[in-house]
Amino acid sequence: MIGRLNHIGVATPSIEDSVRMYADLLGATQAGQPFELPAQGVRVCFIDLPNSQIELIEPLGDDSPIHGFLAKNPRGGQHHVCFEVADILAARDALRAKGATILGTGEPRIGAHGTPILFLHPRDMGGVLVELMETPKEAH
Amino acid sequence: MIGRLNHIGVATPSIEDSVRMYADLLGATQAGQPFELPAQGVRVCFIDLPNSQIELIEPLGDDSPIHGFLAKNPRGGQHHVCFEVADILAARDALRAKGATILGTGEPRIGAHGTPILFLHPRDMGGVLVELMETPKEAH
Repeated sequence: MIGRLNHIGVATPSIEDSVRMYADLLGATQAGQPFELPAQGVRVCFIDLPNSQIELIEPLGDDSPIHGFLAKNPRGGQHHVCFEVADILAARDALRAKGATILGTGEPRIGAHGTPILFLHPRDMGGVLVELMETPKEAH
Repeated sequence: MIGRLNHIGVATPSIEDSVRMYADLLGATQAGQPFELPAQGVRVCFIDLPNSQIELIEPLGDDSPIHGFLAKNPRGGQHHVCFEVADILAARDALRAKGATILGTGEPRIGAHGTPILFLHPRDMGGVLVELMETPKEAH
């Protein structure tokens, strides 16, 4: 079912500081422009690697789900892993049929790449917060 | 400096259970054979994705560094991220010159893919445990 590892999600108290760190220390200089996803309470920025991406995630607004993560991990840290799927609704229904828990309402939202996404409960995924993202039609 | 995202490292109390979970729930069925890295106190298994890999890591021996992680995260979870570099010693020296801390002695060890690896202190990397791995000569 899952395809490419689209990105790893890394929470940070400051996207700008993290972009600078990845560029200065690791030479990963291909960062896009940060943008806001108000419905998800996050501000994000993608750093391109040759085969995948790092998604930097910063809290946006008082209700951001990232505040709790940063309270436990003040420097930031690994937040989620995003795998591509061909059809998000088919993936959701297949996972539910096998007993996995979809977070939230279970209705896909539009993610940072403009395609529908869902998150799976870490309890079913070996402690890993897994995002599933429908593969962009024009990609790859 | 960094190139491909070679793999994400995921700690687990049971490689066999995790392999089954990734296959049954996520359809990621391309798992290699588990093998031991005694010098690093881990047993590992790679699951292939089209563009990257998931490295499952299980404690090996009483001194395994994974025991502490699993004590805090009994189901397992995201442990590290591995980026490829062309030259591990050049990468180490450049990072040290910029003030980053290399874990352990700073001398590269041979990693799960048979090439030299190093780990960087998460404190310098936005809370992320970063592995650097020299790109295999015949790969890609």
